[in-house]
Amino acid sequence: MTPDAFRELGHRLVDWVADYRKRMDKLPVMSPVVPGEVKAAFPRSAPETPQSPQALLELLDQAVVPGITHWNHSRFFAYFPGNSAFPSVLADLVCSALGAQAMSWQTSPAATEVEEVVMEWLQDLVGLPRTFTGVIQDTASTATLVALLCARERTTGFGQRRGGMQAEPSALTVYYSEEAHSSVEKGALMAGFGAENLRRIETDEVFALRPERLAHAIETDLGQGKRPCAIVAGIGTTATTAFDPLHAMLALAKKYGLWLHVDAAMAGSAMILPECRPRWQGVEEADSVVFNPHKWLGVGLDLSAYYVRDVAHLTQTLSTQPSYLKTAQDGQVKNFRDWGVPLGRRFRALKLWFLLHLEGAEAVRRRLRRDLENARWLAAEIARNPDWEVIAPVALQTVCIRHRSADNMAVAQRVNLAGRAYVTPSVVRGRAMIRVSIGSEHSERPDVQAVWDELQRAAACTQRPT
Amino acid sequence: MTPDAFRELGHRLVDWVADYRKRMDKLPVMSPVVPGEVKAAFPRSAPETPQSPQALLELLDQAVVPGITHWNHSRFFAYFPGNSAFPSVLADLVCSALGAQAMSWQTSPAATEVEEVVMEWLQDLVGLPRTFTGVIQDTASTATLVALLCARERTTGFGQRRGGMQAEPSALTVYYSEEAHSSVEKGALMAGFGAENLRRIETDEVFALRPERLAHAIETDLGQGKRPCAIVAGIGTTATTAFDPLHAMLALAKKYGLWLHVDAAMAGSAMILPECRPRWQGVEEADSVVFNPHKWLGVGLDLSAYYVRDVAHLTQTLSTQPSYLKTAQDGQVKNFRDWGVPLGRRFRALKLWFLLHLEGAEAVRRRLRRDLENARWLAAEIARNPDWEVIAPVALQTVCIRHRSADNMAVAQRVNLAGRAYVTPSVVRGRAMIRVSIGSEHSERPDVQAVWDELQRAAACTQRPT
Repeated sequence: MTPDAFRELGHRLVDWVADYRKRMDKLPVMSPVVPGEVKAAFPRSAPETPQSPQALLELLDQAVVPGITHWNHSRFFAYFPGNSAFPSVLADLVCSALGAQAMSWQTSPAATEVEEVVMEWLQDLVGLPRTFTGVIQDTASTATLVALLCARERTTGFGQRRGGMQAEPSALTVYYSEEAHSSVEKGALMAGFGAENLRRIETDEVFALRPERLAHAIETDLGQGKRPCAIVAGIGTTATTAFDPLHAMLALAKKYGLWLHVDAAMAGSAMILPECRPRWQGVEEADSVVFNPHKWLGVGLDLSAYYVRDVAHLTQTLSTQPSYLKTAQDGQVKNFRDWGVPLGRRFRALKLWFLLHLEGAEAVRRRLRRDLENARWLAAEIARNPDWEVIAPVALQTVCIRHRSADNMAVAQRVNLAGRAYVTPSVVRGRAMIRVSIGSEHSERPDVQAVWDELQRAAACTQRPT
Repeated sequence: MTPDAFRELGHRLVDWVADYRKRMDKLPVMSPVVPGEVKAAFPRSAPETPQSPQALLELLDQAVVPGITHWNHSRFFAYFPGNSAFPSVLADLVCSALGAQAMSWQTSPAATEVEEVVMEWLQDLVGLPRTFTGVIQDTASTATLVALLCARERTTGFGQRRGGMQAEPSALTVYYSEEAHSSVEKGALMAGFGAENLRRIETDEVFALRPERLAHAIETDLGQGKRPCAIVAGIGTTATTAFDPLHAMLALAKKYGLWLHVDAAMAGSAMILPECRPRWQGVEEADSVVFNPHKWLGVGLDLSAYYVRDVAHLTQTLSTQPSYLKTAQDGQVKNFRDWGVPLGRRFRALKLWFLLHLEGAEAVRRRLRRDLENARWLAAEIARNPDWEVIAPVALQTVCIRHRSADNMAVAQRVNLAGRAYVTPSVVRGRAMIRVSIGSEHSERPDVQAVWDELQRAAACTQRPT
């Protein structure tokens, strides 16, 4: 494709994107297609000869868009928000066009140095001291895996250089709340800990880890000859955005010499609001912290911010030095390939730069405050309705609710199928509930009112006769 | 940012990209900046208020572009090619704008189904039978980690559900060539095998693994009570694009019940040429195969194609089923979050679709054949020059050379600093050499002639007096 052909189709696609975002709110939030429907619209084999841009745009409109669940829709209340604000969309265009490789400093110095810049901007914005050093990971799942690998290696004195996990004389154990995200268990299993050595610690009435249970679990393991290795603290857990008691967990980590990783995937973004920071007080004592600007902040997927107190654990655990990757600047610069799992790395920092440059931090803060206020409003509305209850404290922007008599799974499914809003059914302590997670960039009060109306309507239709 | 503001800046950036690509070939291939130079051009803290698009474009031009090593430059001969062909750049724009999450089928059915479509197209193009099932991973490093995790779990009967690697009664061992990519060792260490259980098998005069040494290593380990687990075959290894003897390695894998993973990160793309396929004959017997369309094929980073013979190992090793991720379609559809490390996944399949739709497979084949021909031409030129030697067979598009008397590291560095071409100095069997890796999308014969001229000129300047 020539630069001129690129220019022509590029302009069409920019217009296509602007039009898509304008009409998006009229589309069903959750895609209504059935399994196989999108696939059937595509040819069975790759085109041998060039096909027209027009045909591509038609397939995009007719088969792909109907198969999209619109994460930027103003009535997207499912999972956690996943905003791709326009500045980050534009940054991705530039990222792909530059095609820079951020694996080593030399393979594109700007990719490494802009990453340093924006990770410093971000840590100042959330109030993490400069004693931390940041690096971009794709997702919190990967960052948590990295944290657990570093924990494993610190505890074993870099046992991977010898016999690895297989040679450890006593079993290493990992501790986290029963409300921790599934990626914590997944990461621990990938790192070789084994399910029998993972401790899901009970939570209290507000779904926060009970520190006395954690202390007891560590003591029990020590008594049985196990080797406690890492604690993961959930700062805004997935189901209910509960906040684990970080101070108490840090004290235990210190007492027993454990790695403390903070999984603030969702709630970390809230820390750009000074009023939210008491929620993770003590974080400066953690060994590692992850949060996802690709959620609430508006930087398109994927961009996880991973901060560590001691870079040496990271590079000693993950670096490789084959001759073909050596460069003249090694030793003076950061080679981020040694700070994560993949070797090849996109120039993701552009997204954070574009967003903060074009919007400014204050506008992002305003947006997040709007969402917190909307969550409180919704919770108050629901609390006034005798048929419904709010089943967890509204610590952030997620409101966990249940209808007292209807089948909550059926209610959520009915809302989602109707297409005017999208929520996530879930289960907490064995009880079905519905998560309304506020935070889509363009979700205003009328959108929150709309999902509440939808929920009430759906409940009326699905409610069992009494 | 409003859709109209997006439209305006989007059009400017499309033009910016077209202009960048047009002038790129006049820029130094390797960035000439010194450490800290890019960073110094940025403000120390994030803007509080919106800044102008004009200021962003100026910083992009003045600080970022000079800090870019241009991977799409027609005289980029370093590492392996990393092309972001225009169609994939446009696809990334659409990907970011849709903001789809490919973690579960329901979270954007099109993202999953188009991924199925293009992975089938691709496997047909490279001649992998439909007995394989494909999934996109970010990089080959991650895919190889995933393969080793699956190998570990198959060998131990899913030991992660019990005590994990720590509970294994005998040490699990992994085998690969001494020429294998560094990501193989890194993946094995992350998976907990430990350095003492990794076997770097000697290679022959063409840098291919010696199967009799592999057999011997397996037998020795068995004799010592170890438990052989996995073999990684390099199909086009990094330093010299050597091809390990896949047939012999498969026979050993079968005999001893080991997982066989094919790392064809670079060379897999060559298999779209039927004449290259004898090079990986037997691949249909492998357990897993990875190659990187984000290298030679032209799909921008990151898009690795990972194929497995038995999906169950993948999903049983990597799946999690928290209540908040359950969907109505589970069981009928693929939830690709269970096929890799991260939970959040971009809609990367768009890049492969756009590329193959807009260019057609035949044009890609033509381009790869041009590069193979250019590599043979360069090797012949060099062989005719008594001061230089080609030190490895030119199996693909990489030509490994050395000057017989000059300091090859200094020669490579001089070429790179001059900015007219970019090559990779490396070491093979203790000898310094220079890799000229052909395959940039717009590298034509005059570009290959140019790097050869540059190398000769640099050698003349750096040659030690005799």
